[in-house]
Amino acid sequence: MTRPTEDPEELDRADPEGEIARAAEAYRNWGRWGADDRLGTLNLIDPAKRLEAAALVREGVTVSLAQSFDMNGPQKGWRRRTNPVHTMLDTGTDAERGSQGFPHGIGGADDVVAMPLQCSTQWDGLGHIFDHGRAWNGRAAGDVVTSDGDLVTGIEHASSAIVSRGVLLDVARWLDPERGELPDGYAISTGELEACMAAQGASSHVGQGDIVLVRTGRLARARREGWGDYAGGDSPGLSFTTAGWLHRTGIAAIATDTWGFEVRPNEFDLAFQPLHQVAIPNIGLTIGEMWDLEELARRCQELARYDFLLSAPPLPITGAVGSPINPVAVL
Amino acid sequence: MTRPTEDPEELDRADPEGEIARAAEAYRNWGRWGADDRLGTLNLIDPAKRLEAAALVREGVTVSLAQSFDMNGPQKGWRRRTNPVHTMLDTGTDAERGSQGFPHGIGGADDVVAMPLQCSTQWDGLGHIFDHGRAWNGRAAGDVVTSDGDLVTGIEHASSAIVSRGVLLDVARWLDPERGELPDGYAISTGELEACMAAQGASSHVGQGDIVLVRTGRLARARREGWGDYAGGDSPGLSFTTAGWLHRTGIAAIATDTWGFEVRPNEFDLAFQPLHQVAIPNIGLTIGEMWDLEELARRCQELARYDFLLSAPPLPITGAVGSPINPVAVL
Amino acid sequence: MTRPTEDPEELDRADPEGEIARAAEAYRNWGRWGADDRLGTLNLIDPAKRLEAAALVREGVTVSLAQSFDMNGPQKGWRRRTNPVHTMLDTGTDAERGSQGFPHGIGGADDVVAMPLQCSTQWDGLGHIFDHGRAWNGRAAGDVVTSDGDLVTGIEHASSAIVSRGVLLDVARWLDPERGELPDGYAISTGELEACMAAQGASSHVGQGDIVLVRTGRLARARREGWGDYAGGDSPGLSFTTAGWLHRTGIAAIATDTWGFEVRPNEFDLAFQPLHQVAIPNIGLTIGEMWDLEELARRCQELARYDFLLSAPPLPITGAVGSPINPVAVL
Amino acid sequence: MTRPTEDPEELDRADPEGEIARAAEAYRNWGRWGADDRLGTLNLIDPAKRLEAAALVREGVTVSLAQSFDMNGPQKGWRRRTNPVHTMLDTGTDAERGSQGFPHGIGGADDVVAMPLQCSTQWDGLGHIFDHGRAWNGRAAGDVVTSDGDLVTGIEHASSAIVSRGVLLDVARWLDPERGELPDGYAISTGELEACMAAQGASSHVGQGDIVLVRTGRLARARREGWGDYAGGDSPGLSFTTAGWLHRTGIAAIATDTWGFEVRPNEFDLAFQPLHQVAIPNIGLTIGEMWDLEELARRCQELARYDFLLSAPPLPITGAVGSPINPVAVL
Repeated sequence: MTRPTEDPEELDRADPEGEIARAAEAYRNWGRWGADDRLGTLNLIDPAKRLEAAALVREGVTVSLAQSFDMNGPQKGWRRRTNPVHTMLDTGTDAERGSQGFPHGIGGADDVVAMPLQCSTQWDGLGHIFDHGRAWNGRAAGDVVTSDGDLVTGIEHASSAIVSRGVLLDVARWLDPERGELPDGYAISTGELEACMAAQGASSHVGQGDIVLVRTGRLARARREGWGDYAGGDSPGLSFTTAGWLHRTGIAAIATDTWGFEVRPNEFDLAFQPLHQVAIPNIGLTIGEMWDLEELARRCQELARYDFLLSAPPLPITGAVGSPINPVAVL
Repeated sequence: MTRPTEDPEELDRADPEGEIARAAEAYRNWGRWGADDRLGTLNLIDPAKRLEAAALVREGVTVSLAQSFDMNGPQKGWRRRTNPVHTMLDTGTDAERGSQGFPHGIGGADDVVAMPLQCSTQWDGLGHIFDHGRAWNGRAAGDVVTSDGDLVTGIEHASSAIVSRGVLLDVARWLDPERGELPDGYAISTGELEACMAAQGASSHVGQGDIVLVRTGRLARARREGWGDYAGGDSPGLSFTTAGWLHRTGIAAIATDTWGFEVRPNEFDLAFQPLHQVAIPNIGLTIGEMWDLEELARRCQELARYDFLLSAPPLPITGAVGSPINPVAVL
Repeated sequence: MTRPTEDPEELDRADPEGEIARAAEAYRNWGRWGADDRLGTLNLIDPAKRLEAAALVREGVTVSLAQSFDMNGPQKGWRRRTNPVHTMLDTGTDAERGSQGFPHGIGGADDVVAMPLQCSTQWDGLGHIFDHGRAWNGRAAGDVVTSDGDLVTGIEHASSAIVSRGVLLDVARWLDPERGELPDGYAISTGELEACMAAQGASSHVGQGDIVLVRTGRLARARREGWGDYAGGDSPGLSFTTAGWLHRTGIAAIATDTWGFEVRPNEFDLAFQPLHQVAIPNIGLTIGEMWDLEELARRCQELARYDFLLSAPPLPITGAVGSPINPVAVL
Repeated sequence: MTRPTEDPEELDRADPEGEIARAAEAYRNWGRWGADDRLGTLNLIDPAKRLEAAALVREGVTVSLAQSFDMNGPQKGWRRRTNPVHTMLDTGTDAERGSQGFPHGIGGADDVVAMPLQCSTQWDGLGHIFDHGRAWNGRAAGDVVTSDGDLVTGIEHASSAIVSRGVLLDVARWLDPERGELPDGYAISTGELEACMAAQGASSHVGQGDIVLVRTGRLARARREGWGDYAGGDSPGLSFTTAGWLHRTGIAAIATDTWGFEVRPNEFDLAFQPLHQVAIPNIGLTIGEMWDLEELARRCQELARYDFLLSAPPLPITGAVGSPINPVAVL
C-alpha cells in the first residue's frame, strides 16, 4: 500500500474508502498500549508532561473554554441531538411563597438536565466512531458499544487522564490577521499547522502528550451571524491529510471551535467525517468539539504565549461515548 | 444578638430558627463583593492563589474526585432525584451490522443523559438554598430562581472560577486511624478541623481562597456496605457550629464525601440542613457534595502532603443551581 | 360592564385587557361545580351523553386523531418545547447478537421518552393557563401549580372523564370546498361555527357535553409545505369572540388541528392567546391542540355524518398541566 | 415434535428451551396476515367486533384502567427503568408573581416528562420481545429494532387499532371470593381461565378479537402493603401453559394487573418470561401490563356483567416498542 498523502491537493476525491484505508493502516496504534487499553493517545500524557504544564501557570489566570449549555445552542435535531433541556425541580419562587414544607425558613432549588452528550462543548470518547465495524484497538464495535453503552472504553476510564499542557494554534488569526476567521470549507493542512506554530513562536511547539487546540474562527462567526448550520453544516477544519501529523506528533488529544473538528464539506465527493474514521478508532485519539477558544485566543495574543495548563476531565458517565465538559486553561 | 456558639454542646437544640438567625447575621457576606455579585466566596480565589496552587504540582499525578454517574448511584427518588439515565442514540452493534447509512465504512455511537444536577458528585450553586425567601447577597429568592432557572447566580457564572489550592482534611483518618471512618451523626467541630490541620502538618494550613475537602469516610462505608440511606439519610458531617470557621478562614469552597455536607441527623430537634441555610445564601459559599476522596486520601497519606492544585469547574448549564462535576486534584 | 361582543369586527384591538376582562366576567363558571371542582366543563359529560355517543358507532371504524410523536415534529425550542426524544434501552440488534444475558433465547427491547407534554397532540389541562394570577375556579395560581406540578387540577383527575360524543366542524372544507384550508390569521367566528353546523346537517348539532373538533386545514398545509412556524406562528383558529359560544353551548371540550387553538396573530395589537385566558381559567374548558383531523374529515364527508364516539383520555401523569394523547373517533 | 402441554404439572421444569420451542412452533402465527404485517392479533378486531363492543355501553359509565404516572411508582431501576420524572417548564407560582413576560395578565404552566415506556400502565408492542433473534412474523430482530427504534412494527402502527370488546376475568375474586387476591407464584391455568369464564356467566365469553383483562389482585396487595418487588419480583400470573389458549381463542390482546403478565417465579428452574417469548414474537400478541383493574372489578361484580367497550389506543411514539396508556372501559 502506498503512503497516504499529506498534500490536500493530491487526495483522490473519488476514493474516500481507499484514502481512509491507507491512512488507517499507516497511522493505526492498535496494540501500542496493550490489548486491554482504554485510553489511546491519552496514555501519552505522563507525569513529566503535567509538571511541564503546571510550570506554565504564570499569571494565575483561568479561562473557561466551554460554550454554554442551554436551549440557545446550535443543535437542530440531527440524529436526535437536541440542545440541553434544563428544568427545575424546586424554585426560589416556590421557596419564597413558603410552600416547600421545610422548617426554619430554609428553602431550596434543584434542577435536572436532559441532553445529548455531544450537544455542546465535548470530548468524543474512543467508542464514538468505528471503522468498518472496528472500534479502538481493533475490537468489534458490537463488543464495545451496545445499548448498554460503551462497555470497554467508556469515557469514565479517562476521568483522571486529561490534564496536560495545552497549545493553542490560532490558525485563523495567523492566516487572516485582520478578521481571524477562516471560511467554510477551508481545509487546514499539515503545512499550515506547522507554519502557524512557527509564526506563533516557541511557546507553540507541539510535542508528545500535548493537547492541541485549533482555532478556526467558526464559533466567532456563528456568534456574530447566528448559528445557521454550525451544527453539521459547512465549516473550516482540519484536512483529512493531517492524519499523519496527528499521529507522529504524539499529541494526546485535539480540539477545535467547530462542530465537527474536520473540514466540511469533507474533501471527498461523497463522504462523512473521514478524518474521524482514522483518528478515533485507528489512532485512538480523543477529539474535542465545539470548544470556545475566543477569550483564550485574545489572552494568548496579548501574552504572546500559546501554551498553558489545560484541565479538561470528562464527566465520568459510565459507558458514555462522549462527555460534556468545561475545559479550563490556566495561564 | 449574642454571638453564635462554636461549641456543638452549647447549641440550643430546640431553637434552630434562633441559632440559624444568629449565625446568618454574624457571618453574612452580603454586599462584600458589590450588589451585582454572582460568585460569593469564589471571589476569594485570586491569581496569586492559583500560582501557589500550580506550584504544588510536584509529582505530576492527577486524581479524579468524582463518583461515577450511572444507575448504580445512591439516589432513591427523594424530591424526584433519580440516578442518571444514560441511553444510546446509536450503537456499535448497529454500526457493525451496517445499518447506519453512513458511507465508506464509518460507523458511530452517540448518547444522551437525563439526570438531576444534584445526583452525584456536584457543586451546589449559590441559587441552591434560600434563607427566609432570601438568596445570596440578599436578593429575593423569586427574583433569582424561577422555573426558567437561576436568572442571576446561575452556575455558568462560575465557569472559570474554580481552580485553586485544594486542601484535604482527612478527619476520619485522623480521628480513627485504624479504619478511617466516622459514624453517622458524628458532627465535626471547628476544634476538630483545626486539630486535624495541625496533625496533618504544614501542608494542611487552610487560608483565604483555598478549597477544603473534608473526608468523613462515609463513602468508603457505602462502598463496602451498600448505599443504604447514603442519599438523605444519617451521616457524619460538619457541625452547624463550624459556620464561623467557614466564614473567617476565607475559604472559597468546601466539599465532602457525603450526600449533605453537614452532619445528619442535624443537630436540632427538628431541622433540615441548617448549615446550608447559613453557608450558601448568607456566607455565599459554594459547597461540594458526594465527592470521592478515597484515592486522594491514600495519595496524600503516602506523600505526607495534603495540598494540591484543584481544578473543579462546573459545567456551564445556563441558570443551573448546581452542576455535576469531575473535580481533579493534581499533585 | 358591557356585554362582550361576538362580532370580530367590533373588538377593540387596542384593549385586550378590557375585552378579556369583559369576556371573563360574562362567561366565568367559577363555583358552578362546587369549590372543590377539578374538572370544569368536563363535568358536563354525563352517562346519558355517553350512551348517545356509543349509539353513534355504526360502522365499527376507528380513526386515530393523533399526530406522531417523534423528532420530525413541529417544535423548535420555544419555551424549551422540543420534539419528543425517544431512545432505546435495549435493541433487537443487541438481542440478535446474543449479548443481553437472558436465558433460552429470549431477547428484548425497551425504550424511554423525554418530551414536553405540549409537544404534539395534547390536552391543555385546567392548570395550563392563568388569568391575572388566578387558575380555574378562582384559585390562586401559586396554590395550584408549583414546581411540584398541578397540586389541585392535575390532568390525572380527568383520567376517566373524556369519553363523549364528538362533533367535527370542518370549517375549512365548508368555507373552502375546493382546497379545504383556511389561511393564516383567519379568525373563525361564532356565526361561521353555526353556519358550518347548519351546512353539515343534523349530525353536527352541538350540545351540552359534546367535544367539538374544529378543522382549519392548518395541519394539512404543514404536511404539504413543511412545518415552518406551525408551532407558535401564524395560523387560522377560533376568534376571541367565540368565547360566548364556547360557554353557552355547554361543550365539554374543544380541539383543533392547529398549534394554538385560537387565531394567530391574535386579534389585538399586542396580545398572547387571549381566548385561552378566558376559556381555561374562567370557563374551565379543556382544550385540545395539534390534533390530526385529516382522515376523520374524509370519513365524515364520505359518510355525510359528523358525530361519533370520541375517546380521548389523558395519560394520568400526576400533577400534569397537559397530556399527550391519542384521541380515537369511533364511527 | 410433540404437542405442547396445557397442564402446568406436566411442564418439564428443566427444559424451558424445549417447552418454548414446542409452544412457539405450535402457536406461531407468522405469515397469517401477510409478510408485511405490523399488527399481529390486533388484526382480529374487526368492525363487527367494535359494533358489538359499542352495544355493551349501557350505563354510560367510564372507568380508567391506568395506574398513575409519577415518582411514587414501582420502578426501582432494573434495566434503567425508572419511575416517570415530571418537571415544570413554567409554574403558577411564577405566573402569579408576574415574571413570565406575557401581556394582559395571562400566565401559563408547561411541563415535561421523562419516562421509560414500560414504567407504568402500558402495552408491550410487537418489537418488545424476540425469540432466538427473531421478531414478530419471523423477521430478524436487528432488522426490526435498532437504536433508532422499531423500524417495522413500531407501536404507532397500532394507533387506531385498539378499541374492542373487553372482558374482565377476575380470577382472583373467583378463586378467593373473600379477599380477591392470588398469592405470588400462583400460575393461572387454561382450565382456571375457562372455569372463571363459566363462573362469571355469559358476559364473560371470550372470543375472537376480544381483549381479555385478567385480574390477579397483585396490584391491590401492592397498594395495601407497599410496592415491594411489584416491578420484577414474584407475582401471580398466567401459566406458560396458557399459550395454547391465547392462540386458539383468537383474542386480540391481553392485560393483567401485574408487572409481568405471566407468573413469577416462572415455571422453569431457570427462565425469564418464557410466555412472552411465545406470545409476542410468535403469536403476535399485544400484552398489557400494570393495569389497574380494581374499580373495574368492583363495577363488574356490581353489575354482574364482565364485558364492555374497551378503548386503549397507544400513544403513537414513532418506533416505540411499548406505550404508556390510559385504557378506558365504557360500561
